[in-house]
Formats: sequence, C-alpha cells, structure tokens
Amino acid sequence: MTNAVTRVHVWGSSGYAAAEAIRILLRHPFVELGALESRSHAGERLGDHFPALRAQRRRFDREGSVAEQLTAGDVVMMAGARDEAKSVAPRLLERGARVIDFSADFRLDDEAVYGLTEWNREKIARSSLVANPGCYPTAALLALLPLARFDRPAQIVVDAKSGITGAGRNPAVSSLYAEVAGDIRAYGLQTHRHQPEMERTLQAHGFGAPLLFTPHVVPLARGMLSDAYAIYQGGAPPEHDVRAAFEDVYGTAPFIRLVDGESAPSVAAVTGTNDAELRVDVRSNTVRVLCALDNLGKGAAGQAVQNMNVMLGHPEEAGFR
Amino acid sequence: MTNAVTRVHVWGSSGYAAAEAIRILLRHPFVELGALESRSHAGERLGDHFPALRAQRRRFDREGSVAEQLTAGDVVMMAGARDEAKSVAPRLLERGARVIDFSADFRLDDEAVYGLTEWNREKIARSSLVANPGCYPTAALLALLPLARFDRPAQIVVDAKSGITGAGRNPAVSSLYAEVAGDIRAYGLQTHRHQPEMERTLQAHGFGAPLLFTPHVVPLARGMLSDAYAIYQGGAPPEHDVRAAFEDVYGTAPFIRLVDGESAPSVAAVTGTNDAELRVDVRSNTVRVLCALDNLGKGAAGQAVQNMNVMLGHPEEAGFR
Amino acid sequence: MTNAVTRVHVWGSSGYAAAEAIRILLRHPFVELGALESRSHAGERLGDHFPALRAQRRRFDREGSVAEQLTAGDVVMMAGARDEAKSVAPRLLERGARVIDFSADFRLDDEAVYGLTEWNREKIARSSLVANPGCYPTAALLALLPLARFDRPAQIVVDAKSGITGAGRNPAVSSLYAEVAGDIRAYGLQTHRHQPEMERTLQAHGFGAPLLFTPHVVPLARGMLSDAYAIYQGGAPPEHDVRAAFEDVYGTAPFIRLVDGESAPSVAAVTGTNDAELRVDVRSNTVRVLCALDNLGKGAAGQAVQNMNVMLGHPEEAGFR
Amino acid sequence: MTNAVTRVHVWGSSGYAAAEAIRILLRHPFVELGALESRSHAGERLGDHFPALRAQRRRFDREGSVAEQLTAGDVVMMAGARDEAKSVAPRLLERGARVIDFSADFRLDDEAVYGLTEWNREKIARSSLVANPGCYPTAALLALLPLARFDRPAQIVVDAKSGITGAGRNPAVSSLYAEVAGDIRAYGLQTHRHQPEMERTLQAHGFGAPLLFTPHVVPLARGMLSDAYAIYQGGAPPEHDVRAAFEDVYGTAPFIRLVDGESAPSVAAVTGTNDAELRVDVRSNTVRVLCALDNLGKGAAGQAVQNMNVMLGHPEEAGFR
Repeated sequence: MTNAVTRVHVWGSSGYAAAEAIRILLRHPFVELGALESRSHAGERLGDHFPALRAQRRRFDREGSVAEQLTAGDVVMMAGARDEAKSVAPRLLERGARVIDFSADFRLDDEAVYGLTEWNREKIARSSLVANPGCYPTAALLALLPLARFDRPAQIVVDAKSGITGAGRNPAVSSLYAEVAGDIRAYGLQTHRHQPEMERTLQAHGFGAPLLFTPHVVPLARGMLSDAYAIYQGGAPPEHDVRAAFEDVYGTAPFIRLVDGESAPSVAAVTGTNDAELRVDVRSNTVRVLCALDNLGKGAAGQAVQNMNVMLGHPEEAGFR
Repeated sequence: MTNAVTRVHVWGSSGYAAAEAIRILLRHPFVELGALESRSHAGERLGDHFPALRAQRRRFDREGSVAEQLTAGDVVMMAGARDEAKSVAPRLLERGARVIDFSADFRLDDEAVYGLTEWNREKIARSSLVANPGCYPTAALLALLPLARFDRPAQIVVDAKSGITGAGRNPAVSSLYAEVAGDIRAYGLQTHRHQPEMERTLQAHGFGAPLLFTPHVVPLARGMLSDAYAIYQGGAPPEHDVRAAFEDVYGTAPFIRLVDGESAPSVAAVTGTNDAELRVDVRSNTVRVLCALDNLGKGAAGQAVQNMNVMLGHPEEAGFR
Repeated sequence: MTNAVTRVHVWGSSGYAAAEAIRILLRHPFVELGALESRSHAGERLGDHFPALRAQRRRFDREGSVAEQLTAGDVVMMAGARDEAKSVAPRLLERGARVIDFSADFRLDDEAVYGLTEWNREKIARSSLVANPGCYPTAALLALLPLARFDRPAQIVVDAKSGITGAGRNPAVSSLYAEVAGDIRAYGLQTHRHQPEMERTLQAHGFGAPLLFTPHVVPLARGMLSDAYAIYQGGAPPEHDVRAAFEDVYGTAPFIRLVDGESAPSVAAVTGTNDAELRVDVRSNTVRVLCALDNLGKGAAGQAVQNMNVMLGHPEEAGFR
Repeated sequence: MTNAVTRVHVWGSSGYAAAEAIRILLRHPFVELGALESRSHAGERLGDHFPALRAQRRRFDREGSVAEQLTAGDVVMMAGARDEAKSVAPRLLERGARVIDFSADFRLDDEAVYGLTEWNREKIARSSLVANPGCYPTAALLALLPLARFDRPAQIVVDAKSGITGAGRNPAVSSLYAEVAGDIRAYGLQTHRHQPEMERTLQAHGFGAPLLFTPHVVPLARGMLSDAYAIYQGGAPPEHDVRAAFEDVYGTAPFIRLVDGESAPSVAAVTGTNDAELRVDVRSNTVRVLCALDNLGKGAAGQAVQNMNVMLGHPEEAGFR
C-alpha cells in the first residue's frame, strides 16, 4: 500500500487514551482526522477538556457522527466505555472499516486479533478488528513472552506500579489529587480484572505456571513500571541466554529499548512516547524483567496507532518520530 | 467554665474539613465525640474513607443522629453542604446547642458571629452561632486587617495559591490527580465566590478600596499561600510602623507566627496545624503581606476548634499542642 | 536565506535548559547538532542524564569542543554558568558565530539584543549576539508591554509561580523532592535577582511605575504562571481597548495564545512547548494579565530556538510543530 | 523503672530521620532533649531547616556537644553518617549511655541488638546498644518472619516502593524534585546495599531460600509499600493458618495493624506515625504479604523511639498517641 492518507475516526473521544490518540494522529503524516464522537462533550472544544490539545479549534462531534461519516477503508479507534464496542464494532466492520478497540471487549475473543504488536505483526496486518491490549498486560507480556523458548517457570509474579490515568477520566474519589498524592496503593488484591488477559496469552505461548498479579497506583499522572518475576524450580536459564533471547526478539523492534549495566527502565524516559524499556536480570532461581512504558502510549493510544500503521502497511514508526 | 468534657457532634462528616475536625477532636482533652452524621457514608468505618483516621473503629452515623443525640450545651460542627446549615442550625440552637458552621451560609449574616478568631474573640465567646470563615478570607483578612490603623490603601490585590482540598471531596474532573498534577490554574476570573466575604469584613474595618482577588490551584493536597498587596496613593506607611502594628495585634496570638529576615511563610511549616505564618514588607507604594496556612487547619477545621475553645472558655490552644 | 542546514553547538550542555534545547534542535529540520560541550558530563551519554534524550546514543563533548568545531555561520547556544558567557562569547563572535546566551550576562547590556522575540524581531534578525530573556521577565513583559500605549500605571505588581527547574540542575537542598513537594515557597523577598531585567525593558517602553516582583516555587517540575497587575490612579483603561491592544500586538504571533471567557491560562497547556497563554481582565483600577509558559520552553530553550529561527531567516515555528 | 524523665541527645541531627526523631521526642512525656549535635548546621535554628520544627526556637549544637553534656543513663540517638557511629558509640557506651544507632554500622554485628522491636523486645530491653533497622529490612522482615513457623519457601521476592527521603537529605541530582516527579525508578539492580541485613535476620529465623530484593523510588516524600512474595515448591501453607500466624504474632502489637477484606495497606494511613499496616494473601504457590510504613517513622525514627521506650521500661506507645 502506498502512503495515501487514511481517515481515522475516534469513537468515544472524551477519555485520556482517546485524547492521546488524537494528539498522536494530529501529527501523523498519513492520517486525516474524521469524526471525534463524544456523547458527553459533543459540541465542546477539544482544548477546553485536554490541555495538550489546547491549540486545536476542533470540537467533539455528536453521537452518531462516526456512523454518518464512515466510508469503507476508514479506521475507527474505539475508545468508549466497556461493553459498548461489542455491539457497535460489527456494524462498522460490515461497512468496510478497520476497527481498533481500546476496551477489554474483544481481548478474550477469537473474532479479533490481539494487538500486542511486537508479537502479532503478521496477524494484525491481515486483520480488520484489533483488540488493543491493556497497559498492564502489555508490560507483563513484553517482559515474559521472550522466556517461552526456555523451560517453563513454576511461578510467575507480576508487581506493577501505575500512574492514575490508567483508572480513566471518570471522576471517582479514589482518583482525586488529594487521595493519590502522598499514597502508594495496592488494589485488586482479591479480584484481578486484567489477569485473564495476561493468562490467555501466556497460556497460548505455553506458560502453564500460576500467575500472581498485583497492581499498584503511585502518585503519577501517567507511566507504568512493571516488574515480572519468573521463578524456576530447577534453576533459571543462564543470564547470557536470556539476554540473547531478548536481543533476538526485540533487537530490531523500533519501540523496544533494552537497557543494562547501570541503567534501569525509567518511566520518565518513555512518558509521552510509544517506547517501552526492558531490562532482564537472572538471580539464582529467578528471572526478573522490568518494563517501563507509558500507560497512555505503548499501553493504549500509542500501541493503537502502531497497530494501525501495521494494518495500513506503513512503517511502524510513522507518526511517532 | 471549668474544663469539663463537652460533647461535640459533627453534622455532615464525609468531607475533608470534617475529617480534619474529627482528627483534631479525637485528641482534644476536653471533648468527647458525639454523633458523626453522614448521609453518604452512614454505617461505614471512618478509616475506610480517611487514611488519617484508619486506626479508628468508629463508624459514621446515619441521618438524624445529631438531632437524636443532642442535649443542651453540646457543640455541633456543621460541615455539610452549602444551603443546608441555614435550615438545620436554628433547630439545633433552639435545643441549646452551640453551632459552628463551616459553610458560607451564615458568613454574610448578622445572626452569626464571624469566627475569625484573632479579630473577634470576645463576640465569639458570647455567641452560640459562629460562622467559621473560608480559607481564602482567613488568609487575606489576617494579612490586611492590621493595616486598618493606617491611612487606607487605594487598591487591594490578593493573589492566593491553594491546594486542591479546598475544592472539597466531591468527585469532579477538575480535582482529579491527572488534572491537578503538572498544572497551575487560576480560576474564578469572572466571578468571585469568596470576594463578598472578604469585602464585608474589610469594609467593617474601614477599608473602602476596591479588592481584586485571584485564586489559583497548585499541585498540593493541602495548604495555602496568599499574597496580599495594599497599594497606596500617597506612599505606603513606614515599614517600621507596619511591622509594629503586626507585632501589636498578633504578638501574643498563639497560632500566628510572624517571620522576617531571610525567612518566608511556608506552607510546609503549617500543614496539619492551626498555625498561620505572616510576613510583611513595604516597598515604595505597596505593603505586601504573605500568609501561609493550612486550608483544612486554620482555614477550616483548626479555626473551628479554636473558636469552640473560645466559646467554651478553654485556652485557645487546647487540643492542639 | 534559504532553509539550508545550520550547525548549532551547545556550550554548557548539562542543565535543564540545555537539555530542552537539544531536544528541540534534534527535531529541527534546518539544524544539525555540532558540539555538545559539557565540563561535568564529558564523555557520558546524553540519555544517562536526561530521560527525554534516552534514545540518543550521542555523548557530551569535552571542554573546548565548541571552539574546535566552530566555523563561521554556526550558531552557539550558551547555556553554561553565569559569568562565563561574558568572557567566552566575544571569541566565538570574532570567529563568525551567532551566539544566543541563556544566562543573565548580556541582558543588561547594550552589546547584545534582548531576545524577547515578539517585541524585538527586527533587531534580533540583524544581530549576532542575543541575550535570551529569563523566564520570569519573559512572562512579565509579554503581559505588560501591550499596555505601553495607554496612560501609565502608578504601580506594577508581578506575582509569579514557577516550577523548580527554574532553579537549575545543580543539587541544592532547597531543590530536593522532599523539600519542594507539599510546599509553596515565596523567595527573594528582600533582593530581586530578576527585577533589574524587567525594569530595564519596562523603562525602555516608558513605564516609570515602581515594580514589586514576588516569585514563588510550587510543586511542579516545569511551568510558570505569572500574574501581572497594573494599578492605575485615575482608573484603568477600558477593557475593550486593552483586549484590542493585545489582539493587535499578538494576534498573528505564532506562539502567543489569548484566552478569555471561561478559560484561564494553563501551565499544562504550554508544558513542553514554546507557547505562552495570556489573559487580560480589567477590574476597577487594575489591569490584570495572566501569562502561562514553560520556563524551559518560551522561558528559555524554546525562545532561544525561536530567536535562532529569526536570526537565520526561518519561519519562527520551524522545528516546533 | 518509673516514668522519670530521661535526657536524650541526638548526634548527627541534620538529616530527615534526625528531624523526625526530634519531632517525636519533643512531644514525649518522659524525655527532655539534650544536645542536638550537627556539624553542618551548628548554631542555626532547627526551624530554618525543617518546616515541621518551625515553631522551635532551639538551635543545633556544635560538634562535641553530646560528649560534653552526656551523663550516665542518658540516651543517644546516633543519626549521623555511616562509618562514624562505629568509632563514636563505644566511647558513649563507656560513659553509661544507652545508644540507638540509625546507621548500618552495627546491623550486621554481634555487639548490638537488632532493633526490630516486635521480634526482639526482650533483648532490646536488656541492651545498651541497639542497631535500629533500615526501612527496607523493617518492611520485609515484619512481612516474612511470621512465616517461619511453616515449611520454608523455595524463593523469596521483595518488591519495595519508597519515598525519596530514604535517600537522605544530602543534595544529589537523583533526589531533585524535577528528577523524582513523573518517574518510577528501580535501583540497586546489580548490588543490594540492604540485602545482607535482610538475609542475616531471615537466616537466623531459619529461612534458607534465595532472596531477590528490588527497591524502587516513587514520587513521594515519605512512605513505603513493600510487597513480599514467598514462593513454595509443594504448595503454600493454607491461608487460614497463615492469617492465624499473623494474628498470633502481631495481634497485641500496638503499632501493627492487620488489614483484610476490601482493604489494602496504605502509605497515607501510616505517614507521620510509627504504625505499619500488613495484609497477607495466599494464592496457589505463593504467600504475598504487603507492608506499608513510613520510612522515617517505623522505618527509622519512630522505631528508634519505640526501642528507646522498651530500653527504658516505658510503654511502647509512650510519646506516640
């Protein structure tokens, strides 16, 4: 495909991930923005809701705008509430749209391709419905999947620290400044909303070990650091081999940066980008893999645009550098 | 009055100021807590809503509890929503309660005594209904009233910076962590909710100059720094005299700390206390007075307890040190 | 001049403003980076010191590198310590360099053109030595200079709130996270380092009124909101005329955004950009002008690159959008 | 021993932990402050360095003051630099002092009693030299030691998140506000300064499993959340038994709060206190124990005063409630 300009609509455009998608798409050389549909903000200026879009004079479009403006070959980024994409997406697909869904609606589904770009490029390229991964699963899976070529660990522990935008922009007491500042908060200690998404992909890659996932909120607007620990019964694979596996898998991936020596993955280094930083160490029975990414970037809107690039045949980096 | 124990009820106990009042009252030697009435949190533990009250096993009481438990001589701290105190307080007063209202309901009213403690001690001591001042007016008035003995300024400018708890605990997008962090926000540029409260007291002390008040939110949970500028037409009063006036007025006030030399009022130094720090400088036509206080302390719950102490005949510092 | 590529050296590249300049210059279509001279970090990777430059493999160059690599027509951004530019710049200028100095060394000087771009475009275009303004003066002067066409105010008050990067990257206790978080801090209450720079330009535009400038640090890495108050004796000029003056002066300026109505200048909206947001209101005797900018953007490195664009004949926006 | 007043000196009083110790000791009913020796701040006011001590008029004492003022039976809190306590403490002990050392100097030593209060009360009561534990080891050991009564785990993983005051008050670029805000940072990925202290105590309680410890800094002045994971080969002990073990060990400990159900340990709930919150869950092979504490409270100065109380025969809570 040539680098013709594609129209991209955003359905459900009033959340943080939607705003980040719009921000990226505005600079994308092969994209023109179509409808920016928002039930709650229809008619209001983008810039009145999102400081990073302040310079934009555009307004949010009213409900139904995507359906009205859609023509075959358009892309629709679905960033609305959970449970809505499931009913809306099929109609868009019928009309020839390519759909990238940010919600969890299709992630446990066989209809859609799971959009963990670095691990699914070919399927994504052939698909018209991509389930864009959650931020926690993205960080955990980027860290763990390269270990699939070794003997399997007996236990997996994922300890993730996230900024609060991961909880969305709906006002909730627990997301207030005065509640988040000065605290570190573990949550989901009994139920694990993101765990099935991780387990499904881990199992598909042959990991049978139990996974213990513990998410935390730290005082940060955006960014995530996830520490994945793979614990082996008979001794972990040699560090040299594990590092080689990561080099092998990610050496040419444009958005993955492997760090070592004195360096550690840093949230500040990936904020506002689609980059992920990874570092792997082996200590006796355990392989520890740290992954830093922006929960709104590689953990949401960034990866969505990366997937769109793959679907449209553009270079993965188009629109990012 | 001897230091007998008084029962104190909190009506509308689910906001930040109420929680701070409860925290202070729990340590107060001459107080026992009565009903902690909360419509929204009735039956739930204090500690599940307020980390600083985590160790408390008490639960919020249901609607109507204050009225049920009230006996003559009790104190009621009214920390509920605006417009409700106006209708509830009279019934409590009839039954012999002393009422301290945190809302703006009575601040522009002649029924109640305005509870700016340092300026109204005697009236407060004789009153059974105190309108507890807002945080912005407290900071501005503590800074400006000592100037009443000099020729009057031609213009007053108050530029205040506040933490976000001043906006309350009701969830609003503008109070979310991701909106407050990384921003400095002026607001109320067209309408001035707190301005009439300031003007009323300034006028009562003979200030006729126009007041321009500009509030700002900075990334901080609690605390306020207010810069008041009194601009004179014929030259400001001499710095020596102005400093003497502040010493005269506040020299023995237990919660007011005058700083000078290399020191500046600091929010960190007053957070969690009922203290206010003031500093005055004179520069050509202008007297500049900085005031730092905790918007939940001297700006709300702290001053309320200070007022209660005055009403009950206790030392002002009772329960604070 | 055509849009040929110019070599730009950065002398003193280890501070926050230098890093921001490098970040902008790396994306600039008409620039190639020359020496990045740093005494303290020579030989070390950019990305090990600045997260935003993490993807760069370049290393800081050793002392003397700018002098070695300089050829006539190159640009040198001087971002080193105060008092050094004064002795180094003349030698660079002799060899045909264009010099933009970030320090205060040349700001009170007649040798250099003062680089407040919107007010000095023509002189900057003809100059080879530009004194890049400080962040506080930039915000105050952008706010006040449009008032020069009206009768002059009797008093000027500037109350500025800044992020801590304005204090530089040299480690000092007062810049530590644990000191800045949770505090609002006025400083320079007795002496005013930036005041002469503001006064010089105000006087050159005919303002004779005393200026009272009060800077504050708030818990923020970068960004500044400055409230300028011009107080008039005989009544302020009419709001309609004042707004028209701002439209007249800034209406076509690519980096100045005038806001009104319900909107307020927002630091979050300008962070990471060279934009400044301004809002003007008139209230009885006072014109109040709020200005938000990024102290590292329009307040330092952004304006430096904007000035460079003017010096080289590029569009002002080159490298920014 | 009766509750007579003991003189307490602080040697090396210019760091965050020393300031917190002074703050607690000032309210302690059975303590009078002796020398507050500080090489760097001698002669300066406490309140000019520490906002929380602003109301104090006392000044730091000069070098040698502790030695001059010491009499037998006094307590010395040693909060100076590492490697100094080792040479100074013996001379103080000879003169009849009780010494509590905040540094790592004596923690791996048999001369001193390790001051993890809940696990060493009796030895502490009989000792005159207590090595006060580090914040990371305190959180990890409180979480893991109750598991000593079960079969031993095959691997231990400790993933800790800390505020930046744990790094001390010496100015370092990595502790600057602008470096800590907006980032989550793992560190010590190759070497582990605190690991030997944890391992020594774990081994003394019979744990032979390898320990993988990963500390992180999050944007927070004070507070720590530590997640300890004990991974078992043949299945973890039953949750019911594990919870019973924690109840058994900590049920009457005045500063330990066990949380469960919907609750999670919260840093905000322990900041400024000597409390620690713990929560234990068992998931297939793994026992996960979360521990929240204030790194300056239970992780340093709070535990030091708690240890002092034990040494002097006071109730553990003396001075805290």
